[in-house]
Amino acid sequence: MEGTAHLVDVAHFFYILFVVLVAAKLAGELFERIGQPAVLGELVAGVVLGSSMLGVVPVDPGDPYGSIVHVMAEIGVAILLFEIGLETDLREMFKVGSAAFMVAVVGVVLPFAFGYLFWRMYMNDAGLVAIFVGATLTATSVGITARVLADIGKIHTSEARIIIGAAVIDDILGLLILATVEGLAETGQVSVTGVLKLFGLALGFLAAAMGVGLLTARPLFELVNRMRVRGIIVTAALAFALLLAYMADGVGLAPIVGSFAAGLILSRTNQFDAIVEQIKPVANVFTPLFFVSVGAAVDVTILDPRDPTNRDILILGGALFVIAVLGKIAAGFGVFWRKMNRLAVGMGMVPRGEVGLIFAQLGLLAGILSRDVFSALLIMVMGTTLMTPPLLKILFQRSE
Amino acid sequence: MEGTAHLVDVAHFFYILFVVLVAAKLAGELFERIGQPAVLGELVAGVVLGSSMLGVVPVDPGDPYGSIVHVMAEIGVAILLFEIGLETDLREMFKVGSAAFMVAVVGVVLPFAFGYLFWRMYMNDAGLVAIFVGATLTATSVGITARVLADIGKIHTSEARIIIGAAVIDDILGLLILATVEGLAETGQVSVTGVLKLFGLALGFLAAAMGVGLLTARPLFELVNRMRVRGIIVTAALAFALLLAYMADGVGLAPIVGSFAAGLILSRTNQFDAIVEQIKPVANVFTPLFFVSVGAAVDVTILDPRDPTNRDILILGGALFVIAVLGKIAAGFGVFWRKMNRLAVGMGMVPRGEVGLIFAQLGLLAGILSRDVFSALLIMVMGTTLMTPPLLKILFQRSE
Repeated sequence: MEGTAHLVDVAHFFYILFVVLVAAKLAGELFERIGQPAVLGELVAGVVLGSSMLGVVPVDPGDPYGSIVHVMAEIGVAILLFEIGLETDLREMFKVGSAAFMVAVVGVVLPFAFGYLFWRMYMNDAGLVAIFVGATLTATSVGITARVLADIGKIHTSEARIIIGAAVIDDILGLLILATVEGLAETGQVSVTGVLKLFGLALGFLAAAMGVGLLTARPLFELVNRMRVRGIIVTAALAFALLLAYMADGVGLAPIVGSFAAGLILSRTNQFDAIVEQIKPVANVFTPLFFVSVGAAVDVTILDPRDPTNRDILILGGALFVIAVLGKIAAGFGVFWRKMNRLAVGMGMVPRGEVGLIFAQLGLLAGILSRDVFSALLIMVMGTTLMTPPLLKILFQRSE
Repeated sequence: MEGTAHLVDVAHFFYILFVVLVAAKLAGELFERIGQPAVLGELVAGVVLGSSMLGVVPVDPGDPYGSIVHVMAEIGVAILLFEIGLETDLREMFKVGSAAFMVAVVGVVLPFAFGYLFWRMYMNDAGLVAIFVGATLTATSVGITARVLADIGKIHTSEARIIIGAAVIDDILGLLILATVEGLAETGQVSVTGVLKLFGLALGFLAAAMGVGLLTARPLFELVNRMRVRGIIVTAALAFALLLAYMADGVGLAPIVGSFAAGLILSRTNQFDAIVEQIKPVANVFTPLFFVSVGAAVDVTILDPRDPTNRDILILGGALFVIAVLGKIAAGFGVFWRKMNRLAVGMGMVPRGEVGLIFAQLGLLAGILSRDVFSALLIMVMGTTLMTPPLLKILFQRSE
């Protein structure tokens, strides 16, 4: 009763999904065999399949196929963080709370300060551009790191918990920075009460979701367990993750913060084993779409130094990349009171992604950032994303 | 690196998927407890969530969310038929071949003849309209029946195999009819060589896919099994199903014919058990979207008899519905040489869906069918879809 005159050709999407799955798994296998995390293979497969090379995987959300890839990719990363929440012990998480807080705060303050001062000193501009450049350098995108840690079997280390915890706090801080720069871009002013209200809302949501969730999840899933209809456990678990992701988005947080909280909550239910076992195949189908589409968004044409207009962008992007990396690496060393693999924690915070791009996009649309500065920020995002998997693997293995 | 200015709000789609999963499973559970197949619950949940009632689930493929629902729903029904192919024994399937062929041919010829003659006698019109009405009545949509048979545990009966086999043959016949009516709508003529070419292409594809597939699948999946990367079995199996679905579509067949063939082929591999176990949770996530979106496309407003303009449409739709049911029921009795539950087989062929709607849409766009006749055909499709689950369950249980 559906399916009449389609704007989207379903079979063509089947083809895209087929190519993504095959390329992701072949590249993942290849990279694992040469000692690299599988996720790096998926990212590289994405670069090759992306619009600037083969053009098989559309990433423009305005394109009808691109919007489907985008939504399924976001479901994928939400399920990935849900899985990681399931495998995270809440009590162990609280034990690393202060370390995670320090990593997050230092990892936001230093990249912002470095970026701002760099712009001020070398570009002689202390205004909005410097603020936008600094803001874009702040936000960690935890999907890559989480997947690497899962790939190399390190997700249960205290370093992994510190990184994930810091990423959640980083997202809350990112929300405040976003509200601030939005205010600056639109009105030139910052509403302190508005920013504080958002902060309260986000913290209140997380506290309420965890509180209510931990109290009700067990009896709720006992009821679910008594239902007879096919596939009820995996469906209920996924629905729960989607609900919390949707609500997190509603208070301005990243959806993955919600699905991570959902995983933490459901790790306390008696149906835990069944949930973990059944969500795995679902994650295996959706997550390659996320990493391949992250790779597919890499525009290799702006990296070509033979094009003279690219050279200034490349130099600027390289400088921002160095600042981005050093700022987060320093964050790992902020935890002076605890014995841990500081370099590995810092490296885990290095990948930048969506949130940073939202800042940059905002600045571009408001006419504050030029197209060249935007491209330089893109290079920083690509570089931090692609460098993390191999280095993180080396750093975690060195600590053994 | 994706995610900047979206036309589609990812969190809103999370909300739609959450509502679909919860409503489908709650309604499925309720219907199972009152002795009905779960799929009827999902269809009814869809009707309530659809655009003519609550409006939560968009079904218009022109709507950005509707197109995502549509694509994920089609992935769902492709995986469902893949699963059924996995559980189907190819040798047993060949044993019922002649019966399936008779059911398919009678089930196409009678509804077409009845529909054509009805229009000719009562509407005094022996031209293109009668042909389009007849053609719309021919094509079975096997998704509903397959799911009911799985729900009630009858997928391994010979009746189930006859229905599935007949549905595949029905789809090939539908392809020929589609080519014929397309020719009539566009040029007023039928190219016999063109139709025969399509027929040869479809049969050739099926023979080649099954032949090559059966020869290469075992060694291919032995290789896949030696890969180490996470989730390789479920990803490879799904990729294979998507590839054959895409190719089937390429030769004019329904994608589900391709994914069903993929299941038949992979049922002969040594990785069969792992594939079945891991594809189940994936199917459980995607298939509710199909059945809910089928229900969501039901427009309850045209069923309201208080609206006088609806009455003629309702009477015409009712007459077409009776013809549609009787034609397919009679097909079950066409297999005179074999002892079987004829009524149940006929009922399994009753649901009409996408292909019928493609005919009707074609006639509407070509100006051959009026909006009222199109609506009457919609009523026929809705009626045959919603009546099948409960009656099929009764008929299969009676045969015990």
